[in-house]
Amino acid sequence: MKLIADNFRITKKSIRDALKACDPKPIQELVKQCVEKGAVAIDVNTGPLGKFPEKGMAFFIEAVESVTGLPLLIDTSNPAAMKAGLEIAKNRVIINGFSLESHKLEKILPLAAAYNADIIGFLLYSDSRVPKDEAQRFEIALELFERAETAGVSKERIIIDPIVPPLAWEDGIVQARAVLNVIRTLPDLLGFPVRTIAGLSNLTTGAGDKKKKRLMEQSYLAMLAASGLDYVIMDILSRETVNTARASGILAREDLFSWGMVSG
Amino acid sequence: MKLIADNFRITKKSIRDALKACDPKPIQELVKQCVEKGAVAIDVNTGPLGKFPEKGMAFFIEAVESVTGLPLLIDTSNPAAMKAGLEIAKNRVIINGFSLESHKLEKILPLAAAYNADIIGFLLYSDSRVPKDEAQRFEIALELFERAETAGVSKERIIIDPIVPPLAWEDGIVQARAVLNVIRTLPDLLGFPVRTIAGLSNLTTGAGDKKKKRLMEQSYLAMLAASGLDYVIMDILSRETVNTARASGILAREDLFSWGMVSG
Repeated sequence: MKLIADNFRITKKSIRDALKACDPKPIQELVKQCVEKGAVAIDVNTGPLGKFPEKGMAFFIEAVESVTGLPLLIDTSNPAAMKAGLEIAKNRVIINGFSLESHKLEKILPLAAAYNADIIGFLLYSDSRVPKDEAQRFEIALELFERAETAGVSKERIIIDPIVPPLAWEDGIVQARAVLNVIRTLPDLLGFPVRTIAGLSNLTTGAGDKKKKRLMEQSYLAMLAASGLDYVIMDILSRETVNTARASGILAREDLFSWGMVSG
Repeated sequence: MKLIADNFRITKKSIRDALKACDPKPIQELVKQCVEKGAVAIDVNTGPLGKFPEKGMAFFIEAVESVTGLPLLIDTSNPAAMKAGLEIAKNRVIINGFSLESHKLEKILPLAAAYNADIIGFLLYSDSRVPKDEAQRFEIALELFERAETAGVSKERIIIDPIVPPLAWEDGIVQARAVLNVIRTLPDLLGFPVRTIAGLSNLTTGAGDKKKKRLMEQSYLAMLAASGLDYVIMDILSRETVNTARASGILAREDLFSWGMVSG
């Protein structure tokens, strides 16, 4: 299980302020820290970027690439911003992402074909609803692959994100278990080693005790690793959670690996 | 996933001293703490108890039962001590346990039939070797059930312990994963809801950094819970590990359960 930093988010005031001031330094500092902690890629969550998506995206991508050559997950629902990112980026880009929602099928998915990029496919219905069980998730996954093939995107380019649910939902625990089962069984069902990705932070969205949240995150992280998850998008600056991710990743690896490598 | 205390162990000096001095107080104090922390049963690891197994067992059982009515796992390889425990105990007893080793089949397994007691079955070969993969573990499980049936012990009485391996073994990580798979798939393979149990402490047997050990234990605990383990035998006085066990247990439960119940 490889770790991708989710620390770059437009919802953070420091990122918005950097954009407003055209000051790349806070972004460079943040990204440097994420690289030091061992991220294999940086999720660049820019949001839709309002009226000047090209300019905003160019600023962000250049700031990030000035300190790392790691792959970037460009995380925006705005096709213009996504296209700008794909045009500007020198690092490898993974499109984050598409779903059965019609505007994503029409505007985002074709960018993966045009730029020959990997793309994350969310297991969501076309009306953005979250599926209710494993069977529905498998159906959606199959449809995502069909749609991708039609759009000229090969199946090896797709990374499936089953969408970790908030535990605060009425059936959050049941859905969280369904997500684990989908991650575990999807490769067998599809008949090829499809890659999977999941964002951890969604699990504990909503009010709640911080310590309790971390405890649930860490337990679920171990379960994700045991299910065979390939990539987890997470707060890579949270030392304890990263330690759990590394310990879990080692336990989950089939290939031999010394557990002496965990840094406690 | 229910928690069973492994804190009563003859390997602890305080327990040996209590026996020598015929002083039940240290045992009563320890067991009271385990009960307070929410153990559903107490593993009473008496060892073989040397030349006076009946006397030693009587002392231990009476000390434990003076402070709790919880079920006791009597954990000894000495059939005379086991029989004494079954005779003396007023609380429910679970025999811990038997395997394909001939002296256990001959001397321990019949006690489960004679006293109508639940019994833990270890997935070990008759020469005490640990199996090398899932397939071997399944074969052993099937043979344990056959032997039990022949001995007049119904399958519902058996609780399977797949034996958590030390990670320090050369193939410890691979074996630890095999144990998770066995726990997950055994009920389907056997066609009935067989209960499973595992001792956590074995995982980190051997030298190593304490913090690192706890990290591996906590990650593996979450994986055990996600695999559907029914009972974990663990240090119930380790607050952090218990919190992980409870968080993991909540995530692993199919029935609805508020995650507000985790104590952080």
